[in-house]
Amino acid sequence: MKVVKFGGSSLADAKHIKRVFDIVHSDNERRIIVVSAPGKRHENDTKVTDLLISCGLHAINNEDPSPYIEQVVARYKEIADDLILPPTIIETIQNDLLVRLAGDKNNPEQYLDCIKASGEDNHAKLVACYFQEQGVKAKYMNPREAGLIVSNEHGNAQVLPKSYEKLRRLRESCELIIFPGFFGYGQNGGIFTFSRSGSDVTGSILAYAVKADVYENFTDVDAVFSVNPTFVEQPKEIKELTYREMRELSYAGFTVLHEEALIPAIQAGIPVQIKNTNNPRARGTTILRTRENQNGPVVGIASATGFCSIYVSKYLLNREIGFGRKLYAILEEFGISYEHTPSGIDDVTVIIKENQLQEDEEEVLLKRLESELVADEVHIQHSLALIMVVGEGMRHNIGTMARAANALAKADVNIEMINQGSSEVSMMFAVKEVDEKKAVQALYEEFFAEVALPIG
Amino acid sequence: MKVVKFGGSSLADAKHIKRVFDIVHSDNERRIIVVSAPGKRHENDTKVTDLLISCGLHAINNEDPSPYIEQVVARYKEIADDLILPPTIIETIQNDLLVRLAGDKNNPEQYLDCIKASGEDNHAKLVACYFQEQGVKAKYMNPREAGLIVSNEHGNAQVLPKSYEKLRRLRESCELIIFPGFFGYGQNGGIFTFSRSGSDVTGSILAYAVKADVYENFTDVDAVFSVNPTFVEQPKEIKELTYREMRELSYAGFTVLHEEALIPAIQAGIPVQIKNTNNPRARGTTILRTRENQNGPVVGIASATGFCSIYVSKYLLNREIGFGRKLYAILEEFGISYEHTPSGIDDVTVIIKENQLQEDEEEVLLKRLESELVADEVHIQHSLALIMVVGEGMRHNIGTMARAANALAKADVNIEMINQGSSEVSMMFAVKEVDEKKAVQALYEEFFAEVALPIG
Repeated sequence: MKVVKFGGSSLADAKHIKRVFDIVHSDNERRIIVVSAPGKRHENDTKVTDLLISCGLHAINNEDPSPYIEQVVARYKEIADDLILPPTIIETIQNDLLVRLAGDKNNPEQYLDCIKASGEDNHAKLVACYFQEQGVKAKYMNPREAGLIVSNEHGNAQVLPKSYEKLRRLRESCELIIFPGFFGYGQNGGIFTFSRSGSDVTGSILAYAVKADVYENFTDVDAVFSVNPTFVEQPKEIKELTYREMRELSYAGFTVLHEEALIPAIQAGIPVQIKNTNNPRARGTTILRTRENQNGPVVGIASATGFCSIYVSKYLLNREIGFGRKLYAILEEFGISYEHTPSGIDDVTVIIKENQLQEDEEEVLLKRLESELVADEVHIQHSLALIMVVGEGMRHNIGTMARAANALAKADVNIEMINQGSSEVSMMFAVKEVDEKKAVQALYEEFFAEVALPIG
Repeated sequence: MKVVKFGGSSLADAKHIKRVFDIVHSDNERRIIVVSAPGKRHENDTKVTDLLISCGLHAINNEDPSPYIEQVVARYKEIADDLILPPTIIETIQNDLLVRLAGDKNNPEQYLDCIKASGEDNHAKLVACYFQEQGVKAKYMNPREAGLIVSNEHGNAQVLPKSYEKLRRLRESCELIIFPGFFGYGQNGGIFTFSRSGSDVTGSILAYAVKADVYENFTDVDAVFSVNPTFVEQPKEIKELTYREMRELSYAGFTVLHEEALIPAIQAGIPVQIKNTNNPRARGTTILRTRENQNGPVVGIASATGFCSIYVSKYLLNREIGFGRKLYAILEEFGISYEHTPSGIDDVTVIIKENQLQEDEEEVLLKRLESELVADEVHIQHSLALIMVVGEGMRHNIGTMARAANALAKADVNIEMINQGSSEVSMMFAVKEVDEKKAVQALYEEFFAEVALPIG
């Protein structure tokens, strides 16, 4: 069986919901449907979830939320009318919203999560209603009833392992299940939402629970691109991607999928299929544990800006036992997690996300590193971009680094840093942010353009 | 003024000592001469220091040391006779040895250090005697008298800062000073030897103390080679080398100089000149703070075997604050200092010297890393060689990495790891030990052979 998740844009209006119906109807392995809140219908539209947040915030601040409620209800009503659904569904949704709004505001986070979650919850009811109207045995499934129990972390809820046993029973349902994404219930009975891409999380949890054969993730792109399409025109689409490859790509800015959302599916080794609601015949991209290597050593190139590097040098550093511990303990005190730590003999460089360091903190940190590590030199380099060149097995592919380094040299890009050999599936280059685009273009040209010839 | 150190082979017999005399005599800036114990005269000869060690060990174990004493005395006597020195010098040396041998054996280390140090001490007396016989105002200087006070660490003594003030007075001496290398006196009055290349240490300390213009280090090679001469025939000689470059080269196996010995000279920014006693006209190699970059991006290539890499992977590792500290704390418990730590997104690799890890420890360490870091995977790769490609400013030389990576690819060498960008002056490659030689040859060919053309 398949667990199928549809994103907000795939459920934004009646036209799309009809497509969703056709997609689900066309394959009776599609038994569990995870639904997002209605997304944007056009560029300047507002997502229902954003309307609900405004609504909740106004209510908390004792300002009139009604204009937002009306907009939300209007969105559902327009869809219901276009789908010619019985008026009862809109009454249900309206009442549900009023009950939530009348809720206890003493815990604003709890209150807000409850209101936000209504977007998916009510849309699932509407979608279920439409499926039923089409004569399909479909059923709206409430997460509490299904047993989706999560940790009490608003906006960052984590599924509790004990949920899985009960959720597994969904497998037995003879009816098609329409399941709202984005939230679960705490043991206190309250609603707690997941982090961003919350519907992906729900789908992934359900896929794991029912041991789905595949987790289909319907969005609005045909496939994952091999490189950022704003850097390269019409880049190659990726047909197959391993979990590790996806992780390295999304780390450096590939945002098609929020990789943490997939952890349950990954743990269960369930293939994740990314498909386009507006073009369901497109093959899409399949993310799985292992893949056939068809297309050379590199499957994708990603890049991200906003990094800086902290350089610490000390004569005879590498003879000093305990230096690493001291260094990382200090970083930890500043709440800094590091990305990479290339090191020389007498120096180490720590690459971190720039936004982890406030300007006023920066000086303090550098001073502490210098004094407490008795360092000869400590300095920081700002505005670096990290470029990940990703592909299974490239580590053992002689000449790949030569090709990459050549491409960058030819593009007149200085390599500030290389980190290669730890990851089995990636090479990392640090370059100045100003060089990011031409570096990515040069690497794409080298590894994807037809003319590219291996060197060495 | 110049402080001049002569190694054991430069003082192994009368013929060499005459050369040493001519060298010193030819430049009256050479005011302080640091003397090693007589070294090997030919391939199968035994160093006096080794004879003294056997001698001391026998005495400690109440076995007859006399055969070794006789050999030691014979060595000095042969030299003295060939130099036609008055017999008194040999009596002095003989009595000195007997006094040391009669010393207190309750502290074997102290006892052994006292005997070992006699090699340099007595040779300094002999050399001073010869200089005097040639009508030079020369004087044997005892380190205690000179004020060379060191920490109480046998075989690893460290100079105490307060020594420098008194040592500085050597500058005022109107006589040429012949100073024994390799040892100093503890505050308890006992003799403590330095680590290996101890005479280099003495020369470096004196150069620092008297603010010498240059520290000349006479040995038996014309210069530092740009690459291991067992890998490449007639490699280029290095004329100038910065301290940083030397440090990176000697780290990976360049043993012409024991870099730690130079710390005092380096701290004072005193140029260190390596020259050949047997060919003093050769320009030699000068090690200094900064140099003109004449010869391309690379000045030298060094390599060393005996490394292994410990690989630790954990999904979402890079989001985990404190992971580094935990990892390095465990390594520290095992007394392991690490060389490099290239890292991926979800993995980190720690490169260490293989000899730091006993076989039985290895399994324990890996198990602990796996359990305490809750790692997904931990494994170790043995028999790695590190190759350092060294040169000031290469970091900012676009295309250098491309040339290196190409050379390795052409030589069919897989790059197990690269660490580049932290050190300003080196690129490090890890390759399998079996590939070490051809990798070094390929890199030398690329950066030193006349035909080498820049790429990119």
